[in-house]
Formats: sequence, C-alpha cells, structure tokens
Amino acid sequence: MITLTSDFRWPYPAAMRGVLASRTSARLIDVTHRLPRQDVRAAAFWLREVLPYFPPAVHLVVVDPSVGTDRAVAVFAAGDHRFVGPDNGVMVPVARAIDPGFTAWELTDYDAASSTFHGRDVFAPLAADLHETKDWTPSALADVEPVDAIETVTFPSATREGDVILGEVLVVDSFGNVITNIPAQEIDPAFGDTLTVNDESVPFVRAYDAVAPGTPLATIGSHGNLELAVNRGRGTQAFDLSQADAIRVQFDRS
Amino acid sequence: MITLTSDFRWPYPAAMRGVLASRTSARLIDVTHRLPRQDVRAAAFWLREVLPYFPPAVHLVVVDPSVGTDRAVAVFAAGDHRFVGPDNGVMVPVARAIDPGFTAWELTDYDAASSTFHGRDVFAPLAADLHETKDWTPSALADVEPVDAIETVTFPSATREGDVILGEVLVVDSFGNVITNIPAQEIDPAFGDTLTVNDESVPFVRAYDAVAPGTPLATIGSHGNLELAVNRGRGTQAFDLSQADAIRVQFDRS
Amino acid sequence: MITLTSDFRWPYPAAMRGVLASRTSARLIDVTHRLPRQDVRAAAFWLREVLPYFPPAVHLVVVDPSVGTDRAVAVFAAGDHRFVGPDNGVMVPVARAIDPGFTAWELTDYDAASSTFHGRDVFAPLAADLHETKDWTPSALADVEPVDAIETVTFPSATREGDVILGEVLVVDSFGNVITNIPAQEIDPAFGDTLTVNDESVPFVRAYDAVAPGTPLATIGSHGNLELAVNRGRGTQAFDLSQADAIRVQFDRS
Repeated sequence: MITLTSDFRWPYPAAMRGVLASRTSARLIDVTHRLPRQDVRAAAFWLREVLPYFPPAVHLVVVDPSVGTDRAVAVFAAGDHRFVGPDNGVMVPVARAIDPGFTAWELTDYDAASSTFHGRDVFAPLAADLHETKDWTPSALADVEPVDAIETVTFPSATREGDVILGEVLVVDSFGNVITNIPAQEIDPAFGDTLTVNDESVPFVRAYDAVAPGTPLATIGSHGNLELAVNRGRGTQAFDLSQADAIRVQFDRS
Repeated sequence: MITLTSDFRWPYPAAMRGVLASRTSARLIDVTHRLPRQDVRAAAFWLREVLPYFPPAVHLVVVDPSVGTDRAVAVFAAGDHRFVGPDNGVMVPVARAIDPGFTAWELTDYDAASSTFHGRDVFAPLAADLHETKDWTPSALADVEPVDAIETVTFPSATREGDVILGEVLVVDSFGNVITNIPAQEIDPAFGDTLTVNDESVPFVRAYDAVAPGTPLATIGSHGNLELAVNRGRGTQAFDLSQADAIRVQFDRS
Repeated sequence: MITLTSDFRWPYPAAMRGVLASRTSARLIDVTHRLPRQDVRAAAFWLREVLPYFPPAVHLVVVDPSVGTDRAVAVFAAGDHRFVGPDNGVMVPVARAIDPGFTAWELTDYDAASSTFHGRDVFAPLAADLHETKDWTPSALADVEPVDAIETVTFPSATREGDVILGEVLVVDSFGNVITNIPAQEIDPAFGDTLTVNDESVPFVRAYDAVAPGTPLATIGSHGNLELAVNRGRGTQAFDLSQADAIRVQFDRS
C-alpha cells in the first residue's frame, strides 16, 4: 500500500498516481491533497493525526516549498511504515509517534526532469521503487544514504501557572474548529463547567451539539487537545483566531 | 466493497480510510466528502441519487451533527446493500429506494475514543467488521439490535392546482443548478415551450446548451425533476434561489 | 485500469464510479474532477500533461458543455491507451501526444436515460464495456463507427521577433501559477538573469524558492514552458493575468 499526501489540490496529484501505477501494482490510497499550501506545521500535525490509523504502508508526502533547491530527499523507516518526501521535517512527528527511534536516509544527488515538480519526478518514483524492494528496505535504493541529522518540525508546548494555561492555536481544521496545543489532561474542569478563553466565558462540553446551534463552545477534539468551536458554525470566526495565535485559558472556580 | 460518504472535506476522511484498510482488504470507493455541512436533507437527497448505481456494497455514511450525544448508530440492510451511519435519517431515502421493506438495527451502547469523531472511532470499525461477516449480516455484530422506529428524512411534495404547481428547491448542486421537487411528469409543456417560474418566463429545453451561454433555462435534470439552470452559468444566481425556497411554476398556454 | 476525469466537482463523479464498478472490476483511478467548468482548453491542456504518466488505461473524460445536444460520442485508440468522452476535442492533444496517428471512432446514435448527465448514462457504460472487450477494441462496441473528421482543440503558438516573444497565458494552475505558451527553448537567458514580462522586470530562476517569499518570478514549469509565479504566493495576482491574456517577454541584454 502507498498513501499519497500533498498540498497540490489538482491536477498534479494525478501525475503522481500515474507514475506510481506505472511502476507498481501497489494499492494507492489518497490521504489528502488539500493540506494548507506550503505550511509545514499544519502538514506535520495532520500527518501525525491520520497516518497512524493506516496499516503498514509507504507514505508519499509532498509539501515542498523548496522544490528545485538543494534540499535533500528523505526516507524514514518507523516500525513497518516508510515515509518518502522532502527533508523539511514534515514527516518527523508522525515517524516519531510510530517509533521514537525511527531511522533516516537521504538522497542528495539526483536528477529530475523538472525543477518545480519533484512529486512527479523524484518522490513518486522513489516511493514506488521502495515499495518494490523486499521488506521495503530503504538501503536497497541507489544513492540513498543513512543520515544522523534531519530537518524537523516541532510543535510549541503550552505552559501552566496555577489555574491559567498559556497556549497557542496549533492548526485550524476544515470545519473551522480551532485546535490548540493544550492537552485534555491539563483541563481541570469537567464537561458541563465553563472556561474563560481569552477573556470570554465558554461552556466546556463533551459534544458540539450539547449547546444550541450557533453557540461557541470548548471541547476535547479527536486529537486529544482543547478545541474551540461553534455548534454547526466556525470557531475561527466566533473566536477570531488563526494558526499560531495565543490562547489564554483560565478555569472558573465556583 | 465499502463506499465512503461524509461532509468532512479533509483530512478526516483519511483517518476513516486508514481504519477501514487496517481491518479489511475490501475495495474502498469514495462517494464524496463534500456534502453540505451538517445538512441532512442534502445528504439524504444525494445518497438516494448516487448509491443505487453501485454494486452491492457496505455504505459508510457520516453526516453527524450530533456526534458525541446519545444519538444511536444505525445499520440498514436493503437488498444486497448495507448502510452504516448515525441514526439521523440520512440513509433512509436511499435504503427505501432500494428496498421499501429494508430492515434496521441499532447500536446504542458503545465506547468511542473521542466524542467528536465517531466516523473514525465507531462507524468505520463497524462498517469494516460488517464487511467481514459472512453475507454482511448485521445481526452478527456485537450489541447491534433490531429496531422498529428509526429517525427519517422526508422530502416535501409539490402540489398542483390546474396549470399552477407549487414546489420547493430540494437542493442545489455544485454547478449551481437549482433542483426542485417537481417531477417531470407534472410538467405538461414539451421541450421548446416556455414556463413561468416565479413570474419569470423561462425556456423549457432538453439540454443546457439549447440556449445561448448565460441564458436562464428550465430542464429535467438527471434526477427526473424540474431543474432551473443557466447555460454555462449558475442557476442559483440567475433565479436568486437557495435550498428550501418556494417555487411557483405556471404553464404558458398559447 | 480506468481513469476518470471531469469538471463535475461532487457528487456526480460518484455516480460514474458506481456505474463503472457495476460493469467491470477494473481498477478505477480518479485523475481530477475539478477541471475548470466547461473549459475545453484547460481540460485539453491538463489531460496532455497528466495522462501520459499513466500505464495503458481506458481514460473516461467528461467535460461536456453540450450534453444532450446532437454532439457525438468519441472513442480514440492511441498506442495502448483508450479515450472515451464527448467529441469536443478535449482528448485530441493527449491522444496526439501519445500517438500522432491515433485512430478515432464515433457513436452518434444512442439512448440515454437523461439529457443532462451522459457521464453516468452514456460515457461510463461505454468505458466499462470497452475495458471488458478483448484488447480494448473500440470496433467491438455496438454502433461505434470509425471516423475521419473529429472536433479538435489547438493551443495558440508564441511568435518571436529578435529578443521579443509574443505569447499568451495557456492556463492557470491551482497554485495561481501562470502557464504560458512560450517553450523553454525560446528563452535565451540563463537562470539567474532577468526577463522583462509585460514591462515588468522579473528574475528568471530555477526554483520558486530562489527568491524571497512574496517575490514574483519567472521559471520553467514542469510542463516545459515559461511560468510566471510568486514564491509562496499567486502569480495570477502579482502579474494580473488570466487564461488567454497576452504575454510579451523581452530579454534583458547587459
């Protein structure tokens, strides 16, 4: 199985599907091609959320704002999963989540038919070739060399002082839900209580539909962090928040 | 075969694909993940239009504004098709279209890793497990119980008095075509005549391209109902109509 | 293998997938369903860019503004590839790229359940049936007749006088990159030089990221033509250019 992820929208993902299907009969499953454009943090976050649900696969990941420069090509082995993409750190959090001691290879010397579309010319051929090696063995690929240092993407941590947590918007999802970096276990109040989020009092509930349509709420999302949303609306709008904005959460003690 | 439908856009459908692929080697075919957000009428309409064209399959359908509340999980058997999703009526019109006497089961007692993403935590595992039972037998699934009463979605009917039909916009498609609840057989005029739609005279034609580009028209869509459109444009704009708006059609007698 | 391409967005592609899956167990791969609406030039361009990367396949292509009129159904054989879609020229450039002497058949006498959705009612059944014939033989399909004259789409050519090239915007991609009809081999300057594009001086670089984020640039895209872009931005906006706009490129001699 090969999964495909990019920020390409259309039609470029189809060229990658064609290249893959020309070189391997592996099952192809699209993850998404609608990642926010050239946004390594969002890509790293969503890959870590989604790819662990897949069975062992070669994951082709192309969010590549530096295509055509001298950035390297990275290949990771984490458990039975493999990752192929530009060495820009996007694949590191998911590889680490699967296996904290994952191993890395790089390819720095390669030819490409274009300098603007390595998804088609470099990464897809490499992912297909890796899938065709016995046991998906990166070291069997020509010119792929083990490396110690790789680029990485890290997520900011929330900090806590008593009943106040200072965090940040990690990413925003396509529903307009605001996903913070504040883990569920840091939230002392129980569902049904209220939280003060950036000076606004907000019901902390188990389900979006626990409040009336159009009402802002705080909940714990499927990612395990505090999420700010609106029932059947967009949290980004109601809370006026975007990726990387600061969040201040205070517990209301009665 | 398992089909996937939701209003999730990205990246959440990928988590469902991963869960399914981890539990079954069934062929996966995406129907769409771009259904209008949390709109049970539109979902019910499009499922009834599209799913009957598929061969027998387990259809995973997640339009679920009440995720995390006590709404039940529904499993339907209609002919050789199976449906798995929240019990909110969305799957009822298509199940009824395939088999008016379809049978229903529910699951009310279940654990979920999250309260916001049952597509990943409840419905996808259930659809995969159902696909793996012999003959796709819902009663073989643990804790799934037959039920008599289920939630349902119904579509409003048009009414007629002489040469006047009073109807409603059922849904709007992604081309901006306005799909009404007025069946073709209620339209007495022939293609080439004109209709009066909400006081505007409109050519009633067989094909969009029978009028000049930019011209409003009425036709019979692939769903078999009266449709208001613009050749190479958007009917919603020209007719200023949205879902659930009233439509008054009068036949022009010469 | 059957590939699917259209300008349908959702949910209509799903009906085609269902029809195909009901008639053949062929592997189905979506190319894209987000081609610009009813835009035969853009469709012809992208198909020629993408489909040659696929292994031999039956390519179902439905960009069909004249659905329901008397336009014919076309079937092409180019090398080991087959193409099925409306006879409006969209498939000609890719067929010609694969085999300049490709052969064509037409179907002019056919029944369709609808006059607005031949993707579902005519083209998908035909593509599936073609895939099921031995060696994908178009002449084995009932009522399909060889033809000499077919509709065609051609792309305008750039012209050159000394150091000035007069060209045109062929298409715009989903990144907002402006793709011209000026081939790389017409550009005398080397990467690192500047070009004057419509009176604006622009760096001509190998990679988008060779200039600072937000900076306009000219490069050679993966299609082999001059492309006007902005690093991590939209070329269409910075250059104020849309499909079919004129481009005047002058080489800056030092």
